[in-house]
Amino acid sequence: MRILKMGQTGGGIGAFIGEVHRKAARMDGYVQVTAGAFDINPERSLEQGKILGLDPKRVYTDYKTMLKAESALPKGERVDFISICTPNFTHFPIAKACLEAGFNVMCEKPMTMNRQEAEELQKLVKKTGLTFGLLHTYTGYPMVKLAKDMVKAGDLGKIRKVVVQYPQGWLGQLAATMPLKAAWRTDPKQSGASCCIGDIGTHAANLAEYITGLKITSVLADLSTYLGGKLDDNGDVLLRFEKGVKGVLVASQVSSGEENALRIRVYGDKRSLYWNQEDPCYLHVISDTEPEQVWKRGNAYVAAKSPAAGRCTRTPSGHPEAFLEAFANHYKNFTDTIRAKELKKKPTELELDFPSVADGVRGMKFIEAVVASSKKGNVWTKV
Amino acid sequence: MRILKMGQTGGGIGAFIGEVHRKAARMDGYVQVTAGAFDINPERSLEQGKILGLDPKRVYTDYKTMLKAESALPKGERVDFISICTPNFTHFPIAKACLEAGFNVMCEKPMTMNRQEAEELQKLVKKTGLTFGLLHTYTGYPMVKLAKDMVKAGDLGKIRKVVVQYPQGWLGQLAATMPLKAAWRTDPKQSGASCCIGDIGTHAANLAEYITGLKITSVLADLSTYLGGKLDDNGDVLLRFEKGVKGVLVASQVSSGEENALRIRVYGDKRSLYWNQEDPCYLHVISDTEPEQVWKRGNAYVAAKSPAAGRCTRTPSGHPEAFLEAFANHYKNFTDTIRAKELKKKPTELELDFPSVADGVRGMKFIEAVVASSKKGNVWTKV
Amino acid sequence: MRILKMGQTGGGIGAFIGEVHRKAARMDGYVQVTAGAFDINPERSLEQGKILGLDPKRVYTDYKTMLKAESALPKGERVDFISICTPNFTHFPIAKACLEAGFNVMCEKPMTMNRQEAEELQKLVKKTGLTFGLLHTYTGYPMVKLAKDMVKAGDLGKIRKVVVQYPQGWLGQLAATMPLKAAWRTDPKQSGASCCIGDIGTHAANLAEYITGLKITSVLADLSTYLGGKLDDNGDVLLRFEKGVKGVLVASQVSSGEENALRIRVYGDKRSLYWNQEDPCYLHVISDTEPEQVWKRGNAYVAAKSPAAGRCTRTPSGHPEAFLEAFANHYKNFTDTIRAKELKKKPTELELDFPSVADGVRGMKFIEAVVASSKKGNVWTKV
Amino acid sequence: MRILKMGQTGGGIGAFIGEVHRKAARMDGYVQVTAGAFDINPERSLEQGKILGLDPKRVYTDYKTMLKAESALPKGERVDFISICTPNFTHFPIAKACLEAGFNVMCEKPMTMNRQEAEELQKLVKKTGLTFGLLHTYTGYPMVKLAKDMVKAGDLGKIRKVVVQYPQGWLGQLAATMPLKAAWRTDPKQSGASCCIGDIGTHAANLAEYITGLKITSVLADLSTYLGGKLDDNGDVLLRFEKGVKGVLVASQVSSGEENALRIRVYGDKRSLYWNQEDPCYLHVISDTEPEQVWKRGNAYVAAKSPAAGRCTRTPSGHPEAFLEAFANHYKNFTDTIRAKELKKKPTELELDFPSVADGVRGMKFIEAVVASSKKGNVWTKV
Repeated sequence: MRILKMGQTGGGIGAFIGEVHRKAARMDGYVQVTAGAFDINPERSLEQGKILGLDPKRVYTDYKTMLKAESALPKGERVDFISICTPNFTHFPIAKACLEAGFNVMCEKPMTMNRQEAEELQKLVKKTGLTFGLLHTYTGYPMVKLAKDMVKAGDLGKIRKVVVQYPQGWLGQLAATMPLKAAWRTDPKQSGASCCIGDIGTHAANLAEYITGLKITSVLADLSTYLGGKLDDNGDVLLRFEKGVKGVLVASQVSSGEENALRIRVYGDKRSLYWNQEDPCYLHVISDTEPEQVWKRGNAYVAAKSPAAGRCTRTPSGHPEAFLEAFANHYKNFTDTIRAKELKKKPTELELDFPSVADGVRGMKFIEAVVASSKKGNVWTKV
Repeated sequence: MRILKMGQTGGGIGAFIGEVHRKAARMDGYVQVTAGAFDINPERSLEQGKILGLDPKRVYTDYKTMLKAESALPKGERVDFISICTPNFTHFPIAKACLEAGFNVMCEKPMTMNRQEAEELQKLVKKTGLTFGLLHTYTGYPMVKLAKDMVKAGDLGKIRKVVVQYPQGWLGQLAATMPLKAAWRTDPKQSGASCCIGDIGTHAANLAEYITGLKITSVLADLSTYLGGKLDDNGDVLLRFEKGVKGVLVASQVSSGEENALRIRVYGDKRSLYWNQEDPCYLHVISDTEPEQVWKRGNAYVAAKSPAAGRCTRTPSGHPEAFLEAFANHYKNFTDTIRAKELKKKPTELELDFPSVADGVRGMKFIEAVVASSKKGNVWTKV
Repeated sequence: MRILKMGQTGGGIGAFIGEVHRKAARMDGYVQVTAGAFDINPERSLEQGKILGLDPKRVYTDYKTMLKAESALPKGERVDFISICTPNFTHFPIAKACLEAGFNVMCEKPMTMNRQEAEELQKLVKKTGLTFGLLHTYTGYPMVKLAKDMVKAGDLGKIRKVVVQYPQGWLGQLAATMPLKAAWRTDPKQSGASCCIGDIGTHAANLAEYITGLKITSVLADLSTYLGGKLDDNGDVLLRFEKGVKGVLVASQVSSGEENALRIRVYGDKRSLYWNQEDPCYLHVISDTEPEQVWKRGNAYVAAKSPAAGRCTRTPSGHPEAFLEAFANHYKNFTDTIRAKELKKKPTELELDFPSVADGVRGMKFIEAVVASSKKGNVWTKV
Repeated sequence: MRILKMGQTGGGIGAFIGEVHRKAARMDGYVQVTAGAFDINPERSLEQGKILGLDPKRVYTDYKTMLKAESALPKGERVDFISICTPNFTHFPIAKACLEAGFNVMCEKPMTMNRQEAEELQKLVKKTGLTFGLLHTYTGYPMVKLAKDMVKAGDLGKIRKVVVQYPQGWLGQLAATMPLKAAWRTDPKQSGASCCIGDIGTHAANLAEYITGLKITSVLADLSTYLGGKLDDNGDVLLRFEKGVKGVLVASQVSSGEENALRIRVYGDKRSLYWNQEDPCYLHVISDTEPEQVWKRGNAYVAAKSPAAGRCTRTPSGHPEAFLEAFANHYKNFTDTIRAKELKKKPTELELDFPSVADGVRGMKFIEAVVASSKKGNVWTKV
């Protein structure tokens, strides 16, 4: 398998998510970080390049220079894709420029600042035929893939209702200790129309749509701002999905003591399922007539039910996998798709199982609808 | 301590909740079932009386006869209170008649069929000075009492948000297997304006108000009818409490596989708490800066923090107590209040710690507001 | 169903286990406490009788007087059985006297102080044909009954191994705070040959034998005395059962922070099971080839698998039952057995499902073997 | 930070643990796989080298050739350390040859086939001054490091007892489905004197010694062979540690349905702790007088209590880390130690926090004592 070369924007020294992208991309040994514009400060960018063992010539200070220089390299030598890990408001221009320069893109979330930009990217992806991935981490977990396949196989019967919660406490804590650093999150110019819904509500919505295979069609949202910022730090949303399915989405960044508690329950008329990101190796299936089943990552019966889950499993059962591995699964499928296209093969459904530009568009529509609903006084608003 | 004599309406052979009332009332040995109108069928009523070892003279076929006959007995011999366990729509007339006849009342939930009746009962309780209890079971759990006392002591800081869920699956299951029996639940004439919210949503609301000490001031509700009955079988409600606290209440009787999963999370700006009725001996307290604490029923540190919890504990830690004991705690405090009044003492706050006629009025207001909100198209409605 | 009359020895004011016996016996309404020798102090005994609403004539100061007086009452009026809740070292003489006077006996554990006494009682029970129950509480839990029935049905395949743990911390805590009160537990004259193994190790052994249907044939024990008493406060035991099954039993009263953590794992060659007394409504079944199953108390599928469990269930699924109900289940089956015999019927297997004098003999043999093994330097010793 | 070059023996295509070593070594980006003798089949070795993007010149067919060729390369170009992932019986000769050729070694467990070899390696490490790591994975978990630091800080008071369990079911399953492949595990020539104790019992013993800081001084073991192999597949061991601490170790590879359930409880006279490898981000601390505390990975309070845990944390709280990260932590500290020595600095205690040759010697002594104890009829045997 060809080792793909990855360029990165952002991910300088001390940047958390940029490092996660590198760890995830490199995990299976088929991606090599080869170039990067890690920091707008040239010395810090070079320093990061040095730490990563890069050729200094391929360490840049901005994405424009990087795109120009990499484009000039012969194919096979230049980077195969670019991972965008810069601040949120730069995702769109950088992604656009990468696509226009002919590079595949793996983009950190949120994809853009608004729906118009998202749709523009979507068109560009379609036009260029390039591969575009978006880091909605949580659908990378194998037990989430199993959940999706169970729903698809009809194990739950007809879906009735979805309850998805994503409470965190850190923003409240941050506000209590270092108000400034929290600021960009709640600055519309840097974060777009929403903080809590944009940052984590979209993850919850994406997870619900991924597992059920159903689109959210309208929302009735009640956003709150507990911490005095300019944007919401808490959002409670009633949902309507396709096919008459209802739902509730509860997101919060001020729920003291909650860590990253993305939890979903999908209720069907035969069975229901429960998954909790903080205990990710287990999928619980309940019914009124049978004992609860706890499906455990890494077992043959999981792979038999869900090839997508089986494929995204690196260690035997009982040897837990977690966040980084979920992240890596998206890189795995994303790069396998690039490789397939390179070989003029049509990527398989399993290879294409990573969040796409379409998910990014969905996310922006969701944010827009939620914010509009809340502003209009908590009324039903189409997505 | 004087053993109180209990009369019962309902609770005939095979009636689940009537038997629970008897077990709970008798648990501590200070209540004796002495009389009853267990069944409208005279033979079945007598048979139940026989099973309970009652004097056949004190087994009646209807509450009117019972009230008349018991009133005629000398004080000390006649029943001290009447436990109402008949079908929902009869609670009000029976309770009213009992109070008018001078009997204390322990009433199964729902108290009445609507708000007007509830307020009428409330006036009657006030006027008569009699003791009136309502069986909102779940505030009888010692760890719920501890939760209340933690909030009161400020351990959570300022409350921000409440998320309370009460999913069950049984109505869906029942509808699938025996449609007729499910019918009374969804018949407005027998169940009032709501099924799911009336039956379990009020428990959830009552629990939230009890723990936080805050009233729900308005609701925005989305009721559903999945099973084709005349009343809601699922309800999702956005909440506003006093003091700017927000909340979400999710109730359902069609959540396949859920048993009786009343779960509450109360989020404060310092700490948050979590309690789950199906694992009732543990109260979880989380914060951003300390390890999670799991408070465990029966320990000295629980009683030290919450005398109300300590008082309602029968077995040492690790020897779990559960539903019947929670139920019994309400009987304990209810009967202690009757005894205190009998001795012309003012009942203490601890003795008065059982759901009252005021909770019944709150419940009816809550149902009314929720139903109205949903009918008007999911708009904010004052409670 | 005839309400049986219960006499009690012990269970005076403030006595924990005596009160538990009364609550359990009365729970289903088919037992009435009618007589008692609650305390050797006549005033305190009378006071307890008064609290319980007893006729003062039937409140005694010692069991001998009680037996004589009750025997003199006409059948139907005198007590049907006697519940022995006095200090451990009195169990044998009281039980013996009760049997000799023709009374059925429910005896708190331990049955006797040694094996000889136990075997003497066993002979007496056989000779008199009376009903004798022993309060090994934990086999009263419905999920333990389910476990037994699963093993019996072959669901686990051939049993390979049993690991049973029973750690508590209270004795260490007690020793730290009130050394004197702890003393009787560690006084051989009052507690017999063992403290920890006698008090809780026998529960663990009994649970293992009950679920597997296999007898422990030999033991290799390592007893410890951490707190400086005269008897063991900790015991770790290797086990051999019939049919080549091996096991480990870990018991402790000095495991700080443990409450009453009786936990058992039974491993078969097809499946294995796990049950934890502190979370008693759930039975976990695991295998190498299927998802874990969590069987939940109160469901139809439990009763279908285990009529013994179904029969010992009072509330619907999700409405947890716990320690007192487990205790009550033994009283239920014990009294049903008495009733069956009264009607000249052979008690059914379900009615006979309560710990018997044979379990008491097993317990004494187990203690003897464990103590001997430890004294001889941790060598294999036959039970 | 200098990127270290890693050579590998074993880890060919399809080899599970070799791939885990590579993932773990590469995780933080400071190790590059540069050379390898992946397979004795030259074509398969080359193929693996190709997959890994290696220079074919540095892909070898056996460790002797690799050591010779790498030694011939200039410093800075040749590998910095060799990761040994070949079958168990080859660990010793390869490790010895590596050390003699001047290469640092990270060795997969078990270190050797017996105690003599282990002590020989220990001498060689001492003599050469090279860095030697051994992959006892489980002490790499941050919450295990926290546990160690809690014990060290006296939070548990005086340690009384350790109960460590390590049940697995896979060998039973394997034997049921593909007897041949299971064979090497139970072949003394390939696996040494023990299967179950050698493979997983040593992990459990190592974990207990690491957390408590106490050595196991003697053992009384009962080994079993359920599956008919030549070596034990189950072992139950009574333990004596230094300072009068007692313990129980339960290990099994025939516990159907168990995955990799390494669980440890350490009981002190003030507090006790519990950790479970299958739920690795949480450390439970219990006491008789306080609520249970659940310490959660990634929080500031963890790093404050245990710098060793803080240092081995890559993602924020609530973003779980698991097996691969624990593995990577050993590589991190191992390579930091190499780098420190390279810079002529004394490695810090934190850098030296990885299993060493001394742990390997302890492991061999433990196996020897356990096997001897069991053979002699389950008698106490010094370690």
